[in-house]
Amino acid sequence: MNFIEMMNWRYSVKHFNSEKVSQDKIDIILEAIRLAPTSMGLQAMKVFLIEDEILLKEIGEKSCIQPQIKECSHLILLAAREDLTDEELNEFIKRNMDSRNVSEESLSGSKSMALSVQKKDKSEFLDWSMRQTYIVLGIALAAAASEKVDATPMKGFNAQAMDEIMNLKGKGLASSLLIALGYRDEENDPYANSPKVRKAKDEFIEVK
Amino acid sequence: MNFIEMMNWRYSVKHFNSEKVSQDKIDIILEAIRLAPTSMGLQAMKVFLIEDEILLKEIGEKSCIQPQIKECSHLILLAAREDLTDEELNEFIKRNMDSRNVSEESLSGSKSMALSVQKKDKSEFLDWSMRQTYIVLGIALAAAASEKVDATPMKGFNAQAMDEIMNLKGKGLASSLLIALGYRDEENDPYANSPKVRKAKDEFIEVK
Repeated sequence: MNFIEMMNWRYSVKHFNSEKVSQDKIDIILEAIRLAPTSMGLQAMKVFLIEDEILLKEIGEKSCIQPQIKECSHLILLAAREDLTDEELNEFIKRNMDSRNVSEESLSGSKSMALSVQKKDKSEFLDWSMRQTYIVLGIALAAAASEKVDATPMKGFNAQAMDEIMNLKGKGLASSLLIALGYRDEENDPYANSPKVRKAKDEFIEVK
Repeated sequence: MNFIEMMNWRYSVKHFNSEKVSQDKIDIILEAIRLAPTSMGLQAMKVFLIEDEILLKEIGEKSCIQPQIKECSHLILLAAREDLTDEELNEFIKRNMDSRNVSEESLSGSKSMALSVQKKDKSEFLDWSMRQTYIVLGIALAAAASEKVDATPMKGFNAQAMDEIMNLKGKGLASSLLIALGYRDEENDPYANSPKVRKAKDEFIEVK
């Protein structure tokens, strides 16, 4: 499939069948997530691949009652950082030095930009880091489609309950987005063969 | 290129060469943007493809002094909606009815969800619609890479100046993100052959 075929193929799955996604496909999706662009490459988030059945059951009961949680093959949680600790910032600089074999001095521009992000107030920072998870979501959905793995992006869950279930409190992380992965249930998902609904090109895109 | 190769190939370009991106590649990137997933498929944004040299010059002078504005082949602006008007909401329902050949009654669930989005207060709504543009950014960057077109995602511009230049005031739109498109300048871009810097898998991804 080319990219447009991929985008037409994918949709937000309402019901998954019982087929499991292979580990190699999961690894590709996770690697795409790891390589996804974020502001300055700061990656101010953490990614959880949730496989434990007891955890999934608890999430389905307390945070997200949508059937995709029960039916999916794998569940990914993108959790945004609530702040940028000095440790995170120092690791960011060290990572750049090590990967690119450059001096700390040559990264002074990157450091001052990262410092300006660190200085944002709490709610502004969280808004910024949450937005980064949406870029990653876009990449993850495209990566899944490239492997013909179906996905459901989900925001409408109880984030506070999720934070508690995933033990994120006190770790500087806040639940942002869920991605359920699996294979569409052609029989029971009314949208499995439904046309995509999008604004017309002329309405949505303006050439200036 | 497979998806992982695409993600490794792409980076945030600092300098473009003078080569123009062909219209068919631009059309593919714009179509990927149009097909990109957004919450409920509401597409609460507008996309501008900016080609006019006077406009680009003004943007470079008043909103974004980064060299990519001057050097890029094409510039895309993602502008988020500031509200969901009744007209937008009605068009959303009509679009679903027409595309899927279903009754208005069958869409009552979608309508009530869209109404709950419409009811958000102004800043909450804009935050929601801005986040949607970040999903689209992720898709657009992957689409560009699939066509071996280079891109620079940009947030650090003067959004107020951009709103004025693009005449968005009074149209319920707010500048959110820029995507400069073109081809990397291998000679003058120090990052053109620089390794990607990312957190290690074990640090970034936790299996539960």
